[in-house]
Amino acid sequence: MTDGPTDSQAGIDAVGDRTGGELDPRVREHTAGEEQEGIPFIGAGPGDPGLLTVRGKELVDDADLVVHAGSLVSSALLEEHCADAELVNSVGKDLEELVPLMRDAHESGRTVVRLHSGDPAVYGAALEQIDALEREGVPAYVVPGVTSSFAAAATLRTQLTLNGVANHVAFTRPRGKTLDAEDDHVAEFVEMGDVTTCIYLGTHAVSDTMDRLLDRDGVDPDTPVAVVYHASWDDEDVITGTIADIGEKVEAAGYRASAMVLIGEAATGAGYDRSYLYGDWANGGTADADNGETMDAADAASDTETTETEADD
Amino acid sequence: MTDGPTDSQAGIDAVGDRTGGELDPRVREHTAGEEQEGIPFIGAGPGDPGLLTVRGKELVDDADLVVHAGSLVSSALLEEHCADAELVNSVGKDLEELVPLMRDAHESGRTVVRLHSGDPAVYGAALEQIDALEREGVPAYVVPGVTSSFAAAATLRTQLTLNGVANHVAFTRPRGKTLDAEDDHVAEFVEMGDVTTCIYLGTHAVSDTMDRLLDRDGVDPDTPVAVVYHASWDDEDVITGTIADIGEKVEAAGYRASAMVLIGEAATGAGYDRSYLYGDWANGGTADADNGETMDAADAASDTETTETEADD
Repeated sequence: MTDGPTDSQAGIDAVGDRTGGELDPRVREHTAGEEQEGIPFIGAGPGDPGLLTVRGKELVDDADLVVHAGSLVSSALLEEHCADAELVNSVGKDLEELVPLMRDAHESGRTVVRLHSGDPAVYGAALEQIDALEREGVPAYVVPGVTSSFAAAATLRTQLTLNGVANHVAFTRPRGKTLDAEDDHVAEFVEMGDVTTCIYLGTHAVSDTMDRLLDRDGVDPDTPVAVVYHASWDDEDVITGTIADIGEKVEAAGYRASAMVLIGEAATGAGYDRSYLYGDWANGGTADADNGETMDAADAASDTETTETEADD
Repeated sequence: MTDGPTDSQAGIDAVGDRTGGELDPRVREHTAGEEQEGIPFIGAGPGDPGLLTVRGKELVDDADLVVHAGSLVSSALLEEHCADAELVNSVGKDLEELVPLMRDAHESGRTVVRLHSGDPAVYGAALEQIDALEREGVPAYVVPGVTSSFAAAATLRTQLTLNGVANHVAFTRPRGKTLDAEDDHVAEFVEMGDVTTCIYLGTHAVSDTMDRLLDRDGVDPDTPVAVVYHASWDDEDVITGTIADIGEKVEAAGYRASAMVLIGEAATGAGYDRSYLYGDWANGGTADADNGETMDAADAASDTETTETEADD
């Protein structure tokens, strides 16, 4: 069933050589979300079966074999969408086992899909599997999904960006086994003051992360923090506090994993300024007639093409 | 049809008062993705109708009135999912017009949905509409969606995070009418060296943004940049280059809007290190038996619960 080991770092480096000059032709042949030849690496979304995409659902509905990221993909989703497929949990399996397993199933004519939690582009480790598969002659591609910080924001009834208080968003993780201390940017993001810092995969380290923030002069200990455990799952839970006290609260709750930590004013959904997007209602309707000033980022992109999709019936 | 102006900034400030001490009870009563009472603010995703979520599709299928963000939501999606509903383009309408329109439709018993492009939590300006609606007695909530940077990464056959070269992701926008120069963090993100910087809504300013980066000693002019126009749309296009030359290329292509700019090594999908996730195949199979070292971030979260969803048939 499994082959001998292959040098997959060489495979990755070969990709580097290949893309140094020109793009993979499939980049221009296909658009994102389109079905392609080969094995789709599907973003399962945060957990709720309803937060899988329509395309993702079509592809898993059709699958004979679903390789999923263990308990990072909710059992509710697997039960609702993958009831007719063979399921293989990837946790504990290395590339040496996973790649031949997917390759052999694909080559024997079975329909194979790979389900990653959230979106595969965010801390997904999908690309090394894709590169290894393609080195074995099996094409693969990504179908994007909803990431857990978006589900956390929906649960908290907030946005990750809020005019005037949260102009930017960072997806990050703290130092640890897989990230050197010098590459830990949590404090830099928080110190910018208007960044919503979303910590992935770091619940086990919330206390340590907050302690390091409290050591920085540029960090306000009262900065709001919200922790959303299992965002969109049936057992979803929310813990709110500040940089000063959230560590203790999370430890008391006992959550060690699968939670999203949001740091910044956006965690409260309050205190923001109205955008320019919807005119000057905030000031009692003394509307500013200058369209250039009443249009915010969200619609600025459409200023030249606002009639394209007008389709009132 | 429309009421007199209401002070919606006061509404926002009232939310601040309300959430100062305690959470909105609905935060704990509902999980993300669940259908709730009131008007859903749905993330339509990047454009491809297949990248709407299953829940989003159910809700728009049911809708009598869909208020959409003009040409930011693709006509393909509106045609596929909203054919039976009345469509209203929000572009050019201020809150004073939009809120009573949605309120009156809701109160007259019609099923109303609000479609935002991407995910509503990212540069969506959804919350001010939600707060204004709730001030008028109409409940509302968010259904998350796929953001365009995830579609851009799928198109480029890359990830936004790549082990060793792109440890973090920033969603940002450059200075302009809606962002003061002092709150422009593009250069700070790029200078960190291992951040994939995703610029939303800034295609009109790519040249200026790159020129400012080139003025910084800490920025390598050869840093890869990819621009994905209309990610996941039928007319999707990709332009690749570097900080030094992408501005000229984008100007030559003539795209002024609706494109995603990705800055950093992740734009190429090459040169990354294998993660620890899938064992030591990279080194010819001399596997490290220490499980603590062979587990990467993506599965670290599941170390205590790997058996929960194992469901091989």
